[in-house]
Amino acid sequence: MEVPSDLLVDINKLGDYVGEVVTLQGWVETTRGHGKVAFVVARDGTGTVQCVLVRDSVDGATWELYESLNQEALVSIKGKVKEDVRAPGGYEIEIHGVELLAPADDYPIQPKEHGVEFLLDHRHLWLRSAQQRAVLRVRAEVSQAINDFFYTREFVRIDTPILTGAIGEHAGTLFKTDYFNETAYLAQTGQLYVEAACPAFQKVYCFGPTFRAEKSKTRRHLTEFWMVEPEVAFADSDDNMRLQEEFVSYLVERALERCFDELQVLERETGKLEDICPPFPRISYTEALEILKEKGSNTEWGMDLGATDEAALMEDHDLPLFVYNYPKGAKAFYMKENPDDVDTVLCNDLLAPEGYGEIIGGSQREDDLNRLIARIREEGLPEQAYAWYLDLRRYGSFPHSGFGLGLERTVAWITGRHHIREMIPFPRLMNRLYP
Amino acid sequence: MEVPSDLLVDINKLGDYVGEVVTLQGWVETTRGHGKVAFVVARDGTGTVQCVLVRDSVDGATWELYESLNQEALVSIKGKVKEDVRAPGGYEIEIHGVELLAPADDYPIQPKEHGVEFLLDHRHLWLRSAQQRAVLRVRAEVSQAINDFFYTREFVRIDTPILTGAIGEHAGTLFKTDYFNETAYLAQTGQLYVEAACPAFQKVYCFGPTFRAEKSKTRRHLTEFWMVEPEVAFADSDDNMRLQEEFVSYLVERALERCFDELQVLERETGKLEDICPPFPRISYTEALEILKEKGSNTEWGMDLGATDEAALMEDHDLPLFVYNYPKGAKAFYMKENPDDVDTVLCNDLLAPEGYGEIIGGSQREDDLNRLIARIREEGLPEQAYAWYLDLRRYGSFPHSGFGLGLERTVAWITGRHHIREMIPFPRLMNRLYP
Repeated sequence: MEVPSDLLVDINKLGDYVGEVVTLQGWVETTRGHGKVAFVVARDGTGTVQCVLVRDSVDGATWELYESLNQEALVSIKGKVKEDVRAPGGYEIEIHGVELLAPADDYPIQPKEHGVEFLLDHRHLWLRSAQQRAVLRVRAEVSQAINDFFYTREFVRIDTPILTGAIGEHAGTLFKTDYFNETAYLAQTGQLYVEAACPAFQKVYCFGPTFRAEKSKTRRHLTEFWMVEPEVAFADSDDNMRLQEEFVSYLVERALERCFDELQVLERETGKLEDICPPFPRISYTEALEILKEKGSNTEWGMDLGATDEAALMEDHDLPLFVYNYPKGAKAFYMKENPDDVDTVLCNDLLAPEGYGEIIGGSQREDDLNRLIARIREEGLPEQAYAWYLDLRRYGSFPHSGFGLGLERTVAWITGRHHIREMIPFPRLMNRLYP
Repeated sequence: MEVPSDLLVDINKLGDYVGEVVTLQGWVETTRGHGKVAFVVARDGTGTVQCVLVRDSVDGATWELYESLNQEALVSIKGKVKEDVRAPGGYEIEIHGVELLAPADDYPIQPKEHGVEFLLDHRHLWLRSAQQRAVLRVRAEVSQAINDFFYTREFVRIDTPILTGAIGEHAGTLFKTDYFNETAYLAQTGQLYVEAACPAFQKVYCFGPTFRAEKSKTRRHLTEFWMVEPEVAFADSDDNMRLQEEFVSYLVERALERCFDELQVLERETGKLEDICPPFPRISYTEALEILKEKGSNTEWGMDLGATDEAALMEDHDLPLFVYNYPKGAKAFYMKENPDDVDTVLCNDLLAPEGYGEIIGGSQREDDLNRLIARIREEGLPEQAYAWYLDLRRYGSFPHSGFGLGLERTVAWITGRHHIREMIPFPRLMNRLYP
């Protein structure tokens, strides 16, 4: 067996070495032999490449080694780089020598159908699969796009705390922990904190993990998920929706531009994504209810819209749809009362097309101290915990608006995948805390 | 009082409107009057500007309003933009009219010395102060620089879970929560998870909040802080240190390049930062002990280095210093045994100059299955919790290295600030969970 040469090359750089003898290190994805010719598909994390082994041109030990190679064994392959338009990636390696660097006996995930619970039990290995790699590359691209969008628009990133003393929106769905003999809750949102940073920077955002202890097993729920929450001083609800449509369109455009190969792997119909650009259609909650009534829904004015209602509304839309100004009773205490209709608040949801449902919730915030106190009391929330939040209305109160976009739901829509549990490297579900 | 014109302008864009009459919205930082002329310094989050009010050129109501303005009142100011090289920012507003948009009676933070506990109690307002704004802008710039560094080098971002079933390094310093009748621990590191993603992407990183339930009140400890942890397949300990020095130098360069004004506000001696570039000096742990012995330290071979030892070592260095290959017993179980000296592991700390201490801990990871199992048993760690982690050594085990850089410690060094509690928008300390 030959000693590999020293010209170590990443697979995604093979194009720079056509005709040269190089060495690559990678994991064996598949092997198949045809008596005189065999193929090894290797992956090094930058890409995959097919390597061709001609029995007569290597020594017996190399052929024997080839025959013993298991899926996910780590190998070093030395060979000549050849251009081949038929090969995935456009290049092939003509193998001169192979070295086994680390074995992989009985790799659990075989190229057959496994149940999803089995795959989730082996998430630490499942990550290596082509579709999972594609999804997580899109996620990483969208994450960077989120940061780039706000950075180039001069927003200041504000990292908000996970450990909080204040109670969030849904007291029943909080994880809690002992905090040096106090009780801390894991944050469901960073919104209240980014609001505090507005008078310092005008435009701010947070982007991090959030937590919901919900006993929910739908395809749209995780107990731990990432959310980005911008907040803008002097912006009203209209400004807020304009920012949302610009933002979502940018994320889709970045994914199309820089993850085209990944979307192909996932067999995503990209035509539908190419049409995503502002403006998005807008209907009021009240208009939505009229449409839903015509479609046979029983939802009464005052109730929040459920997933079925959202799906019915989206039947008529290929673009994301804003539904704005929901009934006050259906939404959170901090949303600003609509001066033209005090039964509603200046808020919006943004529904994604193709059945992906709500990806954004946003609102103008109540900036009137007394109305905010009244709402806190109406909801029976602990006023003392919100003392600092009320201070923002005491000292130079200002109009401001913001929203939260769920990363995993957005990536599910962009990648066209059914279940958001695959949109995060290590999903946390009601029954899953491992690996 | 005049109605403000409609040409609403951000303070950092005033240069585009010299000679024009504009309106700005902002919070009053200070006012001072001299009988016939008065000054209002306003801040809108994009900048601050001095506005000049000439008594004879406005009506009585405007002057009266001026006299009633409190710190942090929100005002709308209409006036003419004038170039003035003496003014901070280079522009001034000649006031034509002022409108009070929201009052701020008895703003708690006055332009005098307050105790730090008082300021931390009012962190939601303290954020508005010039030095705090400067620090947090540097933090945001460094955060974006971290993402840009890895993105441009084709690392894939992997968001690792906060809620974990596995036990981390220091079982005694974990926050825990009930997780649907299981116990979950808040992650102290994402490292084990990013290791799992290496065979999928070769180069990966995580960047998010981490938690330590340490009863520590030093200026270098927070219970919740942000850490970035890259991990690279096929990289050894030397490669790892090269990546670290390149990374740290890039962060410093970005801060110098894009936060020069903020560093001036903080009176940072930037000359010392300008010299930060690779290579950084390297000494082994054993060499470090010899140097320390000469300096009178009692630290014995085998013990970890404390803050005092680190400070003594840094007396001789203006660049960050690598200390590598610590005794096995002083470091974590996952570090690779040094083949040339089995009493040590292939690891490094990176110490920042000017007394800022350790900002990075890194290592090559143990990739030998049996040695890793032996170390887990030696440390008395629960082997079952690490079953998935051991799988990474069972199936195509690979050499790999990585490190963790603490964001707040790094920003403290770059900004030249003493205490890391100011390096994060809402610090969490042993005695502080609010606001």
